[in-house]
Amino acid sequence: MEALILAGGSGTRFWPLSRRTHPKQLLALEGETSPLQDTVHRLAPLIEPSAVWVCTTELLADRVRGALPEVAPERILAEPTGRNTAPAIGWAAHAIRAIRGDAVLAVLPADHRVERPEVLRRALERAGELAAEGRVVALGVEPRWPETGYGYLELGAEVSLGARGVKRFTEKPEAEEARRFVDSGGYLWNAGMFVFSVDVYLRQLGRFAPEIARGLEAIAAAPAGTAELYAELPSISVDYAVMEKLDDLLSVPVDCGWSDLGSWKALAEVMPTDGAGNACRGDVLAIDAADNLLFSDQGLVAALGVSGLVVVRTADAVLVAPKERAQEVRRLVEELVERRRDELL
Amino acid sequence: MEALILAGGSGTRFWPLSRRTHPKQLLALEGETSPLQDTVHRLAPLIEPSAVWVCTTELLADRVRGALPEVAPERILAEPTGRNTAPAIGWAAHAIRAIRGDAVLAVLPADHRVERPEVLRRALERAGELAAEGRVVALGVEPRWPETGYGYLELGAEVSLGARGVKRFTEKPEAEEARRFVDSGGYLWNAGMFVFSVDVYLRQLGRFAPEIARGLEAIAAAPAGTAELYAELPSISVDYAVMEKLDDLLSVPVDCGWSDLGSWKALAEVMPTDGAGNACRGDVLAIDAADNLLFSDQGLVAALGVSGLVVVRTADAVLVAPKERAQEVRRLVEELVERRRDELL
Repeated sequence: MEALILAGGSGTRFWPLSRRTHPKQLLALEGETSPLQDTVHRLAPLIEPSAVWVCTTELLADRVRGALPEVAPERILAEPTGRNTAPAIGWAAHAIRAIRGDAVLAVLPADHRVERPEVLRRALERAGELAAEGRVVALGVEPRWPETGYGYLELGAEVSLGARGVKRFTEKPEAEEARRFVDSGGYLWNAGMFVFSVDVYLRQLGRFAPEIARGLEAIAAAPAGTAELYAELPSISVDYAVMEKLDDLLSVPVDCGWSDLGSWKALAEVMPTDGAGNACRGDVLAIDAADNLLFSDQGLVAALGVSGLVVVRTADAVLVAPKERAQEVRRLVEELVERRRDELL
Repeated sequence: MEALILAGGSGTRFWPLSRRTHPKQLLALEGETSPLQDTVHRLAPLIEPSAVWVCTTELLADRVRGALPEVAPERILAEPTGRNTAPAIGWAAHAIRAIRGDAVLAVLPADHRVERPEVLRRALERAGELAAEGRVVALGVEPRWPETGYGYLELGAEVSLGARGVKRFTEKPEAEEARRFVDSGGYLWNAGMFVFSVDVYLRQLGRFAPEIARGLEAIAAAPAGTAELYAELPSISVDYAVMEKLDDLLSVPVDCGWSDLGSWKALAEVMPTDGAGNACRGDVLAIDAADNLLFSDQGLVAALGVSGLVVVRTADAVLVAPKERAQEVRRLVEELVERRRDELL
């Protein structure tokens, strides 16, 4: 089994720490290593770095290669520009098939967190066996709250040891629907981790997203025109383009302590806290302060008498917001775009 | 009339902007000029810079001279160390008498704010006339809330045009007493601005604070021993050492829009605000944020969805606290002293 790690994201939800050239997957948010590095490391011994592919963008390629010296540079594929995951996986699948032929591929986001890697590896192994039989498998996580930003897998019968059929895949439901999904107990979160063979993915892409499939074939036939042709591909996620449409999707549940680290709040929840519930990183001084995320990349963060806040300091900016509104940080980023504050983006 | 500006303060209430070497009186908190510079400028034409004396500490003397090129360097007196206002005024009074002989002296703090300088000048002029007759005059301000950090002047009868007798001077009353003072309508805040002649002050010091008076005379007799002798003087304010004890203190009320700028909150109250009540200075971005003080000395302060906070960013630190607890910033400073973080003090 080979792994394809998707590392092209340019998320803004960790601003001011994350920037266009330093998105979340490249940031050492917790310790000394980045989510991208952690993603590679946790796959071994099931999938060694010599079997890892990374798909990123040209803007990030050098930094990704620098972060992953154990992955051969030619295995780090740089899209000319980000077109979301359905084209990215397809483009990488073509590249892998050209070098390796058909192969079972575990597709993994580069910016998620996993507490129990050995549980993940066992699930990937089982999913790999099913993918070798031609199936498409989505790893599923027990939902912990009615999140509207995730996809939900409605579970059917167990069709094989450790694998359930998926009756329906619903990406980003409304709040009420999400609540119903969680209450029913019959749904899993889509964790963005899929296992299938290269040939099967490209066949499904041809079936459900023919415009992308044709574009990628044109690129494979005339690589010199890649930049131009790639930019014309529809920008769409693999969830919407393929997974939602499959009628024979399987799910392997995985209880691996997963988090997509989707916001500063999500990071705070997985960090160790002091006696007052403050999650602190870097040079921090807190007095009479409780339940805050206090994060310094440079300089001192001094908090007095505040609670439930996110305070993040970098060399050139500081963010102050309630933890519960951490998702809205993108509004600040949008305003900075509007004001042409490129140096802060 | 000469002015003596007391500029030796080392306050911590504007941390992280104020530091040992850059206390409040030297900071451009509002515009391009510092409270010290504003204090000198608002005295003219009543008291020109050529009639201004400044008492500061050796640590700050060079910066004070740099900030006040219009004041002759020899008029900027540098205490070897800060011993509070009673010794400082006495020491300066000796120096002034040695050069100028007896003179009427308006003593003014270097770090207060005055909205209507012409009103202040009129009051100082009247107080100067009374001081020339041998009286000690404290300028008084209508109290706006039951502040426990100020001194209160209990007013007696009008003894002269624009001047009332002071029945009692109470420095830093308890909360209940302060409330009673404000409700009664018969009290003024002591604004720390006094007018008296050099000889009268030294005589009263000899009467009520003989240890200080003797020490200052020893210094005048043997200037070479200043550093050693000065360090041995009791550290006490002019309010406690002299003003509280006088039975013939006068007060000239002055409605000059006075603020002692005693905290970040006090600064926020005198700053212009945006439509949502945010007082902003420097590079600030606020979304859905109301009633905050957002102050950047370096870098961007980005606030989302917060209210009633003080956020102050400098090159090496950021402070986040509720406005209502701005006075407690000293607790952070004390902790930094404890942790020997000299670079932040």
